[in-house]
Amino acid sequence: MNPVPDLSRLLSPRSVAIVGASSNLDSISGRPLKLLGRFGYQGAVYPVNPLRSEVDGRRCWPDVASLPETPDVVIIGVRADLVEGVIDQCVERGVPFGIIFASGFAEAADPRSQRRLVERAASGGMRLLGPNCQGLVNLAGKIPLSFSASLDTERIEAGPVAYISQSGAFGFASYAMAADQGVGFRYVVTTGNQADLDIIDFARYFVADPEVGLLVLYLEGIDRGEAFLDLLEEARQRDLPLAVLKAGRSATAQAAAKSHTAALAGDQASWDAVMRQYRVLAIDDADDIVDMGRIFSDRRPLGGNRVAILTTSGGGGILMADRCDEEGLVVPAFSGELQARLAPYLPVFGSTRNPVDMTAQVINDPQGFPACLDAVLESSETDMVVVVVSMITGEAGRQMAADLARAAQKARKPLVCCWMINEEQGGSFLRYLRRRKVPLFQSPRRCARALGALYRWSTGRRQPRCSAVEGGDLLAGFPATLTEYDAKRLLALHGVPVTRERLCATLEETLAAAEEIGYPVALKVMSPDILHKTEARIVALRLRDREELQNAYGRLLERASLHDPHASIAGVLVQEMVEGGLECMIGVRRDSVFGPMVAVGLGGIYVEILKDLSLRHAPLSEKTALEMIEELKGYPLLKGVRGEEGRDVAALARAVAAVSRMACAEPDLLELDINPLFVLAEGKGVLAADALVIRR
Amino acid sequence: MNPVPDLSRLLSPRSVAIVGASSNLDSISGRPLKLLGRFGYQGAVYPVNPLRSEVDGRRCWPDVASLPETPDVVIIGVRADLVEGVIDQCVERGVPFGIIFASGFAEAADPRSQRRLVERAASGGMRLLGPNCQGLVNLAGKIPLSFSASLDTERIEAGPVAYISQSGAFGFASYAMAADQGVGFRYVVTTGNQADLDIIDFARYFVADPEVGLLVLYLEGIDRGEAFLDLLEEARQRDLPLAVLKAGRSATAQAAAKSHTAALAGDQASWDAVMRQYRVLAIDDADDIVDMGRIFSDRRPLGGNRVAILTTSGGGGILMADRCDEEGLVVPAFSGELQARLAPYLPVFGSTRNPVDMTAQVINDPQGFPACLDAVLESSETDMVVVVVSMITGEAGRQMAADLARAAQKARKPLVCCWMINEEQGGSFLRYLRRRKVPLFQSPRRCARALGALYRWSTGRRQPRCSAVEGGDLLAGFPATLTEYDAKRLLALHGVPVTRERLCATLEETLAAAEEIGYPVALKVMSPDILHKTEARIVALRLRDREELQNAYGRLLERASLHDPHASIAGVLVQEMVEGGLECMIGVRRDSVFGPMVAVGLGGIYVEILKDLSLRHAPLSEKTALEMIEELKGYPLLKGVRGEEGRDVAALARAVAAVSRMACAEPDLLELDINPLFVLAEGKGVLAADALVIRR
Repeated sequence: MNPVPDLSRLLSPRSVAIVGASSNLDSISGRPLKLLGRFGYQGAVYPVNPLRSEVDGRRCWPDVASLPETPDVVIIGVRADLVEGVIDQCVERGVPFGIIFASGFAEAADPRSQRRLVERAASGGMRLLGPNCQGLVNLAGKIPLSFSASLDTERIEAGPVAYISQSGAFGFASYAMAADQGVGFRYVVTTGNQADLDIIDFARYFVADPEVGLLVLYLEGIDRGEAFLDLLEEARQRDLPLAVLKAGRSATAQAAAKSHTAALAGDQASWDAVMRQYRVLAIDDADDIVDMGRIFSDRRPLGGNRVAILTTSGGGGILMADRCDEEGLVVPAFSGELQARLAPYLPVFGSTRNPVDMTAQVINDPQGFPACLDAVLESSETDMVVVVVSMITGEAGRQMAADLARAAQKARKPLVCCWMINEEQGGSFLRYLRRRKVPLFQSPRRCARALGALYRWSTGRRQPRCSAVEGGDLLAGFPATLTEYDAKRLLALHGVPVTRERLCATLEETLAAAEEIGYPVALKVMSPDILHKTEARIVALRLRDREELQNAYGRLLERASLHDPHASIAGVLVQEMVEGGLECMIGVRRDSVFGPMVAVGLGGIYVEILKDLSLRHAPLSEKTALEMIEELKGYPLLKGVRGEEGRDVAALARAVAAVSRMACAEPDLLELDINPLFVLAEGKGVLAADALVIRR
Repeated sequence: MNPVPDLSRLLSPRSVAIVGASSNLDSISGRPLKLLGRFGYQGAVYPVNPLRSEVDGRRCWPDVASLPETPDVVIIGVRADLVEGVIDQCVERGVPFGIIFASGFAEAADPRSQRRLVERAASGGMRLLGPNCQGLVNLAGKIPLSFSASLDTERIEAGPVAYISQSGAFGFASYAMAADQGVGFRYVVTTGNQADLDIIDFARYFVADPEVGLLVLYLEGIDRGEAFLDLLEEARQRDLPLAVLKAGRSATAQAAAKSHTAALAGDQASWDAVMRQYRVLAIDDADDIVDMGRIFSDRRPLGGNRVAILTTSGGGGILMADRCDEEGLVVPAFSGELQARLAPYLPVFGSTRNPVDMTAQVINDPQGFPACLDAVLESSETDMVVVVVSMITGEAGRQMAADLARAAQKARKPLVCCWMINEEQGGSFLRYLRRRKVPLFQSPRRCARALGALYRWSTGRRQPRCSAVEGGDLLAGFPATLTEYDAKRLLALHGVPVTRERLCATLEETLAAAEEIGYPVALKVMSPDILHKTEARIVALRLRDREELQNAYGRLLERASLHDPHASIAGVLVQEMVEGGLECMIGVRRDSVFGPMVAVGLGGIYVEILKDLSLRHAPLSEKTALEMIEELKGYPLLKGVRGEEGRDVAALARAVAAVSRMACAEPDLLELDINPLFVLAEGKGVLAADALVIRR
């Protein structure tokens, strides 16, 4: 893995200079100064502006060279065309980090000027954040290096979430909304055009920070696929949840991303496959940042998927049970024993079953709600507890909130609250619970989704990344354009079983080969110039005897020459007919960001009409291959239906894993399509019957 | 259609009595009095309580009989065991409407006492709301007949939404949250156990109210399927959007619903099919009530699915474009002309393309944002406009909010805003926009979903309900248990084409029938005692000649008698072999709530493994049948793939429609399964090759 740049002096600088510091403290170059003051930053702050001797009561310096010390960070608050000069000053002085706010570089279709900035900075070992960003804030250290209005708030409480966003405006806006909901952040970093430091640099740095409990990324694209995979592996090793909001899924949005932060968008299907494979929390909205922040900030061990629902509203409990069910969570009916523990506190028209309908009457007995909470929290029948509260107001509401906070403090399993109430009557309870760090929702759907994400993350297998595959560039020994025969030889060399077959030059050889292989056989003309054999009609199947073979031989060669008189003919292929196998396919393509991706699916209509394919990043283990196969909608056909025998799924998984290793070992393999691959009866293996290799 | 009860005196009573009125104005029986006072109710209010002479400064009456006039509504605020006595008093006095708050009836497993209440009331023509409900509020008329704390708020603004909820607590809690978000309600009604008046009664009444612009239902079940379908048809005729939150989808939640409001849950798949068929807005969360309320309260004509996105945050615009794309909305790249209109107001690093990235710089020119808004609102390239705003604060924020409100007032197409900002810095703008009725969101996903719902609702075809099918109980003329032969005769009588076939009693007849039909033929033993013929192995296919037929005849009859020596044999069926048809299936079952439902799908693995079925309520038109067929994942197989000829989809649609009429015309038809139904080449029709009828 590549080394991670040390960003400690950028995130916790001992001194900060602001070049272009304005005395207008509401301007972009004036606001950082105001914010540093407001946050009580303890390091030295140096305004730099040749036109002023003083800004906001601080001495102002004419340039970087004249500063009394070399600042750890220079905030470059000048317009685009002046940035380069400032960087030169910084390099001269040996400044380690610069933050560039200005827009008008790569996103305005001027990649050259941006590249120049990075080259200049690199010449002095200086690292850059931006341009076209809103800087960063270290909330734990109370250090704002940004102009964002989000930081103008009165009270900011730090927490375990590190959030890195390519978009400055969206990043700080979504941060502000999440903070409003009580989510505590440790860092917010906006990377903009990422001319130098990018999301991955920051993310890998934060993975190593033990205080970070959740890493959230907003990104419009990634150009360093390998480094991103390193990040995912590091997060896995640290067991750190990683939520990624990938913007630019649609074609329109992709085009917009290019003009926004000059981001490269990878292939969407590959993205989704990589996210699934490495158990990333895929999110797609500002709301999700809030919800993941809420649920992952409170990390109590979660052992299973059984939810206890306590509610003051029967309807609310039912809704919550529905939404939990959709998330793969279970709302088990309670044992008689547990129901007996709850019964004394419930009216006859309540329900002890689960959802536990305490009804609003639970407020009449001050012991009732705490007792119910204790019962479900202590029970071995539950893995997590959701309290759904409706319009409980006034003193009763205050009491419930206090009971909840108390229970949350000692709970040994996740306890969350969904309180459906308006601001005027419930705002104070909601704020109280947020302060006490009780994960709080107002929508049953969002609550259940967050619990579902927590459950899947907590219990999901996170397999280590398969180690890279070394050597084996066997493709180098093959002709420039591979025929089916070549492709299958290559497959065989990589351990993928192929049909018995022989490439023949004459009719005599063809007949002899058929005798050896045994009728019926298939006959195909091999030509590097005719790769789509079916269209050219140069394939004959199920030739039953010598005579049929002889006829086919002449006919196919004639068709080949009619199809393309100049086609070079490598020979004819005599191939065993495979009977009774289930048609599947395995494919490889090379994603521009992540490299080799492997797909498996059932053949024929399944792939063509139902798009029933599983996609993963290569290399992958047989275990992962098995997961891919089990995901297929047509999997029951492989397992055997209606009393039919099952197929050799294990052999199919072996073949998928072998293809995935091959995809990595052959750097020049651009595309591979094995179709059909026949999957035989259990224990009988698989056979690649046709294959197409496209070389880089 | 059934008549709709006149609820005007219940919703707008001239006088209200409160039996059990408590001087504790915070108790359930005291709060209605307090709320009537607070809302400034103009009618007469009569507290009734034999133990008091005065409550809250009003004269208190000992019983209903002694009241100076007959109140339009009596709120019955006494405990469950006293309710019956109060109803007797009301009936005596001729009170038209009663509202019962008390719990402890059907939901506490005491259906008898509840039934008795209704019988007593009905004897005097009195209609009841509840029990186990929280009453209702007429917000337009400022008349609260409820004890809900949701009504304790300072300021309530009425609007076009009528909301009826089976659950009192959830209903009033979700109402309160939606009202917080600026959604204006006309009525909120909670129906609880629905012993008498139910959701459908209120909904049909509200459909007739021209001031109602959106009808929202929360329900846990429906027992009057026909009346519900009447409601859907009435809403369609009035072009009134109807959003339904159906709780109790999961098995756990269904059980809970039963104990909560004693609701009957119908079959979930039938529910979903009916919702889809009649274009109901299916929602599933409290958030959706807010969002539907926001988007449907502002009913500007929507002509298409082209969204213009104006944004101050490139990232926010990209996210919005992604979410719109997922909703089937289009974010078209703008013409050069429109881009030229926008360009003067955007910096070089902005984007005029769509999403229009105005960047935060748009605030620098006071004309910029209004000009951009006008450009996209006036353009013929857009059908709706979304403004995505990030952390624009202070004076600039105030200005943007004012510009938005102004534009919204004159806009002739939907204009919505998604403003991502925290409460402290943005709360005042958000409240301002809500007051000005600009549909306002803070989540791009929720915003796009609401627009998607609006688009689908505005442009979706809403076909009238097929009229009921009269007469035709042909099943009465068939034997008690129908063989395949009987089933197909019944199908043929209802206009569904079946295979040519003859039921034969002897080998001679069999041979003659085969000659007439033409070889190859299929042979099947018909017995009302052996309905699963394949298992019993009493079917022989593709018999090519006389000899094969002869052999099969003896073999099949022998197997039938081995399978069940006592089976009565109705004969052997000689049937034409259908070659080259695509296997499909048509099924009928009878839902406990909605009655006959019709399913169509491709046969074999498509139905069995991929569950690829379309389901609708019967009867249905050929047009609807065609929609069902087009929804199938395997539809491309019917249309023709890989150069194969298409199938007779029109004939399949005709058969589905015929089956749907048959399902209605045959009241005793419990289940029908036509499988396979062969769909032949275009113009060649369909043929039912096997069918099973199960009679009630």
